[in-house]
Amino acid sequence: MQTLTTLSSLRTALAELPKPLGLVPTMGYLHPGHLSLVHVARRECETVVASIFVNPTQFGPTEDLSTYPRDLESDLTKLRNEGTDVVWTPSKEEMYPPGFQTWVEVEALTKFLEGAMRPGHFRGVTTVVAKLFNAVQPQKAYFGQKDAQQVAVIKQMVRDLNFLIEIIVCPTMREFDGLAMSSRNAYLKGDERRAATVLYRALNAARIAYQSGERSANTLRHLMADTIRTEPLAKMQYVSCAHPVTLKDLDWVEGDALCSMAVYVGGTRLIDNFLLESGVWIT
Amino acid sequence: MQTLTTLSSLRTALAELPKPLGLVPTMGYLHPGHLSLVHVARRECETVVASIFVNPTQFGPTEDLSTYPRDLESDLTKLRNEGTDVVWTPSKEEMYPPGFQTWVEVEALTKFLEGAMRPGHFRGVTTVVAKLFNAVQPQKAYFGQKDAQQVAVIKQMVRDLNFLIEIIVCPTMREFDGLAMSSRNAYLKGDERRAATVLYRALNAARIAYQSGERSANTLRHLMADTIRTEPLAKMQYVSCAHPVTLKDLDWVEGDALCSMAVYVGGTRLIDNFLLESGVWIT
Repeated sequence: MQTLTTLSSLRTALAELPKPLGLVPTMGYLHPGHLSLVHVARRECETVVASIFVNPTQFGPTEDLSTYPRDLESDLTKLRNEGTDVVWTPSKEEMYPPGFQTWVEVEALTKFLEGAMRPGHFRGVTTVVAKLFNAVQPQKAYFGQKDAQQVAVIKQMVRDLNFLIEIIVCPTMREFDGLAMSSRNAYLKGDERRAATVLYRALNAARIAYQSGERSANTLRHLMADTIRTEPLAKMQYVSCAHPVTLKDLDWVEGDALCSMAVYVGGTRLIDNFLLESGVWIT
Repeated sequence: MQTLTTLSSLRTALAELPKPLGLVPTMGYLHPGHLSLVHVARRECETVVASIFVNPTQFGPTEDLSTYPRDLESDLTKLRNEGTDVVWTPSKEEMYPPGFQTWVEVEALTKFLEGAMRPGHFRGVTTVVAKLFNAVQPQKAYFGQKDAQQVAVIKQMVRDLNFLIEIIVCPTMREFDGLAMSSRNAYLKGDERRAATVLYRALNAARIAYQSGERSANTLRHLMADTIRTEPLAKMQYVSCAHPVTLKDLDWVEGDALCSMAVYVGGTRLIDNFLLESGVWIT
């Protein structure tokens, strides 16, 4: 496995490696969710490239950039064990040199949900992903369903800007009790870890109601919100039952719908989601 | 020469053609300036692709989108005669399908000169050029020095977004009397055509003063403005003597400087420029 930091060394290395090439973009502190992406990429591609970059431009001024968990050595061991060929770990200066001033922005889709709560977040995401796409020029790129809106936004960017890259979405990986795996779970202290399952419980409440025939999106949202309110350590930021492509909140569920939420558990902001009709549950 | 309209047919055709691939993006109504780009691309690349697309998103609401001159048949003949391999002529719907919402924006550089006069213009340019770059995936792309700020903005985008494309800038081509070649020269009626040489005369005044030792940017700007004022059919929009990379207006010329201007001649808006130190004059 080659570990590279500069763009030029990356390009030199990739020129020698066979296609198709699969990219797994990450911010490090890897958990089994990330490794499942590498695993699928390994099965589908001749060359697997992972990137590790805690992208400052997708964090808001009051967010957790400085405390975001990092463990490069452990990440490299995990990636090596999954058969990764190349790891790119660019510096902040390599990605955003002095004078940097170009941004990629997806408009309508980023107005809702995470985009509404985290102004500028998706501009940072699409800009860094466009840079990663151009640096690596992969045939396929792998993202987790956990960040459902990110997936929708990146797919829109790929369509709109003619990127010749197939976006592969892999199911959310969960802990034994349903908590969606996330690097931010490392922030959870004491009782917060148990309380954090409330997102899963809320999604489950909506799923069970939907499977029993409930089609009012408002009722499904209320069910989720009511579940979150039962947990004293949790504070809901939003719940949504939205169209899976436009992300606009629905009145009635016809076809598929994306149930999603952001919840503070103590000081930790957690998100989770599933697709009512096609959603994959790994319990 | 293959003439293609859809993105998918373009990709199928390009997959068969040898590299390096050179792209000449145009809005059609081709003149010898465009053809000089094709000529250089033909010399340097195995495959030459030209695009013809009058990009609506780079025109302001009061600008000349609907009247922009078009002559596809003549353009195709000229491109064939220069040895172009593939011409891509996408429709507006192919480039901007319903739901399109992703924009590429270069910030600081687009605040000056043309960017100040034409809000949104460069956002349209960088977005369509990013789309063309991703659609064609060229190794080299060819642009004219005539649109000096466009060149600076595109180079910045290429650096910032990690496009692996070399930007080749070719000198401005001029008519016998110095008028820079432009598709918009077709708008000039009667006496306007003669009056339009005032841009060239103004640039020449600055060049002669510079070559005589003048280094005050203000004096050079005044010389250009004074020249434009001598022409009754001309109305100056701006003159600038700016840093060739940052495009910020200079106090003193040390090293190179970009002299540029926008001038209305009758109802036609014309631009021209040259680099004081390294600028190429084809007279």
